[in-house]
Amino acid sequence: MQPEQYAASIPYWKHIGMELLEVGDGHAAVSLSVGQEHSSNDERLIAHGGVIASLVDSAAGMAATAANGAITPTIDMRIDYLAPVTTDLRADAEIVRHGESTSVVSCEVYDTEGTHVATARSVFKTGGGDGETPWSRE
Amino acid sequence: MQPEQYAASIPYWKHIGMELLEVGDGHAAVSLSVGQEHSSNDERLIAHGGVIASLVDSAAGMAATAANGAITPTIDMRIDYLAPVTTDLRADAEIVRHGESTSVVSCEVYDTEGTHVATARSVFKTGGGDGETPWSRE
Amino acid sequence: MQPEQYAASIPYWKHIGMELLEVGDGHAAVSLSVGQEHSSNDERLIAHGGVIASLVDSAAGMAATAANGAITPTIDMRIDYLAPVTTDLRADAEIVRHGESTSVVSCEVYDTEGTHVATARSVFKTGGGDGETPWSRE
Amino acid sequence: MQPEQYAASIPYWKHIGMELLEVGDGHAAVSLSVGQEHSSNDERLIAHGGVIASLVDSAAGMAATAANGAITPTIDMRIDYLAPVTTDLRADAEIVRHGESTSVVSCEVYDTEGTHVATARSVFKTGGGDGETPWSRE
Repeated sequence: MQPEQYAASIPYWKHIGMELLEVGDGHAAVSLSVGQEHSSNDERLIAHGGVIASLVDSAAGMAATAANGAITPTIDMRIDYLAPVTTDLRADAEIVRHGESTSVVSCEVYDTEGTHVATARSVFKTGGGDGETPWSRE
Repeated sequence: MQPEQYAASIPYWKHIGMELLEVGDGHAAVSLSVGQEHSSNDERLIAHGGVIASLVDSAAGMAATAANGAITPTIDMRIDYLAPVTTDLRADAEIVRHGESTSVVSCEVYDTEGTHVATARSVFKTGGGDGETPWSRE
Repeated sequence: MQPEQYAASIPYWKHIGMELLEVGDGHAAVSLSVGQEHSSNDERLIAHGGVIASLVDSAAGMAATAANGAITPTIDMRIDYLAPVTTDLRADAEIVRHGESTSVVSCEVYDTEGTHVATARSVFKTGGGDGETPWSRE
Repeated sequence: MQPEQYAASIPYWKHIGMELLEVGDGHAAVSLSVGQEHSSNDERLIAHGGVIASLVDSAAGMAATAANGAITPTIDMRIDYLAPVTTDLRADAEIVRHGESTSVVSCEVYDTEGTHVATARSVFKTGGGDGETPWSRE
């Protein structure tokens, strides 16, 4: 399955409103359409931290999975929130180090005005995924 | 507004399926009902990392907000994923250090079988929230 | 080589003034004798953040290495600094999850008055260390 | 006191062998001369993780302190170790976001062969340091 097809098949991506923009060469970009359902406040639109974390895990995971050629479970993720989010988002993830057992990925998130709203680092498991795992697809 | 009312008013909590179980004395517990819409796989139920991150930011943020008496934006969050998630979840957050400008909160996530599926630490901004901010409610 | 002998052989432990107090069953405790050479200030004794980070990496790494039966390089480390350090220190590290390719370890640091001065989480590489590596001993 | 003088006055910098190379405009660079006293192995030179963490906290802290105009205690630090270290090191720190109460700083560490050996993010306290604190100098 191609990355574009794989991304489009993920139920949580649909639930949150994420789309794959680019993938390849250790890089992936994902967009997220922010609506009132993502808000942490019922009186105004201000995206919940979990929305941004969902976008980061999706973009960084896609970069790692594409480089690995197999699904890469997240080992850990660390996010710095830099500014409040009130518009749609774009996340760009880049592999920092791709290894046989783990990969480190950085991810930068921007809003539609170009404001840098979050920066993150994640570690993914790249080895041991050849057999049947809880993450496997047929 | 009481914490229970506040939690019930947050649009993203409804969108993800989270409910406040307990809050007080530097502690908060939140449940998340996991369904196929949270899956990272269209062939089976395996929760996306963003789902667990959303739960962590919600539980930890509620503990910090209740202790602070005012909304506490997330400064950073770090999650270790310990096991695949295929059932409903419960997160328990505890304040590690409550300060005038920032607070550190730990959060442990368990599935319905008692498996420890994630552990996290977050830092929240506790000062400077008296005036109008992007997070304010009337 | 036993853990006690191994710890006593590490040049950096001597340079910083660390000693192994306990090790076993997924746990390790290490002490650090704080002196003016550890200070970030030439007018008073206030330990540099790198001193506490050195203690955390040592205690957590010893817990992981003992559980793994082979040296475990650090993949990542995250420290929250909770209070200024002006006395000797003790770090207690516990394995949160021990896996075939990686382990997650928590570490709590206390001063001699019992103040909780730092809390940390680390990930260590537990697989792939059977052959010759840059970390190997004869 | 100028940053160069301040750096040269710090006891722990001398103990570890660090020197300030550059500082200004939200940036700082620090070198570390790696010797056998920094090794985690008595049979060969392989730098302990605490050595790299000490360098990161020093470079990132100097960038934050210079931008803030006052000493900035570390709130948290997260390091990804990318490759084994066997040579001298250089760390370059850049402010990602400078705020009134906290600042986020990134730091990249390279060895003398240009290998990217570590990447880190730290949060520093930038507010509340006007009065007497445990970190103050006369």
